[in-house]
Amino acid sequence: MRGTVLYSPHDIRFEDVPEPKILKPTDAIVRIAATCVCGSDLWPYRGLQATAEPMPMGHEYCGIVEEVGNAVKSVKPGQFVIGSFFASDNTCPHCQHGYQSSCQNREFVGGAQAPLLRVPLADGTLVATPETPTDDIIPSLLAVSDVMGTGWFAADAANVKPGATVAVVGDGAVGLLGILSAKLMGAERIIAMSRHAARQQIAREFGATNIVEERGDEGVARIKDLTNGVGADSILECVGTQESMWQAIRSIRPGGSVGYVGVPHGVELDGANLFYAHVHLHGGPAPVRRYLPDLISQVWDRKIDPGKVFDLTLPLDQVAEGYRAMDERRAIKTLLRP
Amino acid sequence: MRGTVLYSPHDIRFEDVPEPKILKPTDAIVRIAATCVCGSDLWPYRGLQATAEPMPMGHEYCGIVEEVGNAVKSVKPGQFVIGSFFASDNTCPHCQHGYQSSCQNREFVGGAQAPLLRVPLADGTLVATPETPTDDIIPSLLAVSDVMGTGWFAADAANVKPGATVAVVGDGAVGLLGILSAKLMGAERIIAMSRHAARQQIAREFGATNIVEERGDEGVARIKDLTNGVGADSILECVGTQESMWQAIRSIRPGGSVGYVGVPHGVELDGANLFYAHVHLHGGPAPVRRYLPDLISQVWDRKIDPGKVFDLTLPLDQVAEGYRAMDERRAIKTLLRP
Repeated sequence: MRGTVLYSPHDIRFEDVPEPKILKPTDAIVRIAATCVCGSDLWPYRGLQATAEPMPMGHEYCGIVEEVGNAVKSVKPGQFVIGSFFASDNTCPHCQHGYQSSCQNREFVGGAQAPLLRVPLADGTLVATPETPTDDIIPSLLAVSDVMGTGWFAADAANVKPGATVAVVGDGAVGLLGILSAKLMGAERIIAMSRHAARQQIAREFGATNIVEERGDEGVARIKDLTNGVGADSILECVGTQESMWQAIRSIRPGGSVGYVGVPHGVELDGANLFYAHVHLHGGPAPVRRYLPDLISQVWDRKIDPGKVFDLTLPLDQVAEGYRAMDERRAIKTLLRP
Repeated sequence: MRGTVLYSPHDIRFEDVPEPKILKPTDAIVRIAATCVCGSDLWPYRGLQATAEPMPMGHEYCGIVEEVGNAVKSVKPGQFVIGSFFASDNTCPHCQHGYQSSCQNREFVGGAQAPLLRVPLADGTLVATPETPTDDIIPSLLAVSDVMGTGWFAADAANVKPGATVAVVGDGAVGLLGILSAKLMGAERIIAMSRHAARQQIAREFGATNIVEERGDEGVARIKDLTNGVGADSILECVGTQESMWQAIRSIRPGGSVGYVGVPHGVELDGANLFYAHVHLHGGPAPVRRYLPDLISQVWDRKIDPGKVFDLTLPLDQVAEGYRAMDERRAIKTLLRP
């Protein structure tokens, strides 16, 4: 088969790769119905994260189970399934506490931008839909695999409560779905920080009540202005840079919570500043598995439509253009169909 | 009157100072029944925090109201009161959220190691006892003014729940009272990190179930050993150094909480390490005012005895010896009687 491989910055190839096989009795092979390009894929694509050797790309997926190892009990061939980017056993102490992305036996699921994917720990990782879905909700089911689960975790980590004032730093797909998540959790005011008209529009559709275009000190000042000098109750940090983290921390009210899901690149936090900010800080790789059953239900029942963040759909063999469009911010998020 | 002034590292003087006066109609003057030396007083005493000019010392206090400004309504002369080191109006949005130590009108209360003290924002800051207390509980009432409230905040910020496994980094008075707080919140296992026999004994009296003498990597390994490799649910960081913060963060289970109350000195946290630790981080100057009514009640009803941390009592004019004893770790905490 042909799959997606990153050779070096900006050198994405769709080329012959070995078909995945069952390696352990707990594995499953999934035939991909749809996959996509993640904001985090752009870090190595842009050369901001080293790639020592050619790297199979893609970690967001949904599709039909093709084959399972002989220890797999909870899913079977023919079922439509969704999983997270970290395979997890869903039974270890960390999983039981709801942190499946820190599972003691976790494995990163890579190589999803291809027609077939090996998913380890299938019983713990994959969640099946009630039936095979109709084509129209496949983008939203795919979104649940990572971006929607990550946006939801950002809002959960930021302790969003009914009536809260929330700000979202970052207008990528995760930030936009963080807005949707905050809205679903009952936030009263949601301030989206964005400079892009198309993203601002989706932000408003998802529930943003205010748009702030300023960044850095000016962005902080605008949040303070909008909250009578108090600061926001909850802030979702969905970027991962030093500037975005400090912008989030400085915009919070004392006792408020910053949920951060942007993978930190070069972020250093000064302990004394954190101390006097009185901020609650929580984040990390989203434990998407915790949220899968609920989010799949909400998509299945047509209550939410997180697939709106896909504004470009391409056949899988045009994956390189999918990366380019996101890198140049021509697309928010690219969906790929094998 | 004579009061305590720090001139330069190790140069503490008890000397003539002006008597405090009502400067604003919201002030009160308190005649000190007891005061003490704080672990944080040792930072400038040791020269680890600059003192540009002679600094009146002391911020822990309880005593009898001597005089009030004409806007003060909730306390009156003759009442026995306790307050926190940050005066707060207790009405601003930050106070209403329970973060009185970040009050929009906060003022630091300094100069308590003296017979008389000016307390700003008296209505918001001071809490009166039901009657004038008997002498035996004055140490415990004094402890509530800072160390007990700070230990309680550490446990609260570390989200200690019934049945939890808790570790406490730091065996100063705050760490010891963090142990007591965790016990009162229902922790099942409390691991005290201490190398001092006298402190270990108080730790056990307050509820510690295990003592760990190792620090750094070895300390982390011991916590992991004691928790079947999982890590603690909650960790109270009561020191404020780079080593103690990382020890706390590295000893937590994914999703667990570090509550930090040691004033950070030279602490830098790497964003990526925090991210993958999946830690909840919360701390800052303890909003002691939030807890005063409850903690005063518990002391008044003889349910808790936080005054046990005072293992040295001196007349106020021997304050310099009180500092020396703590600096040399001959005393856990020095109580001073005017």
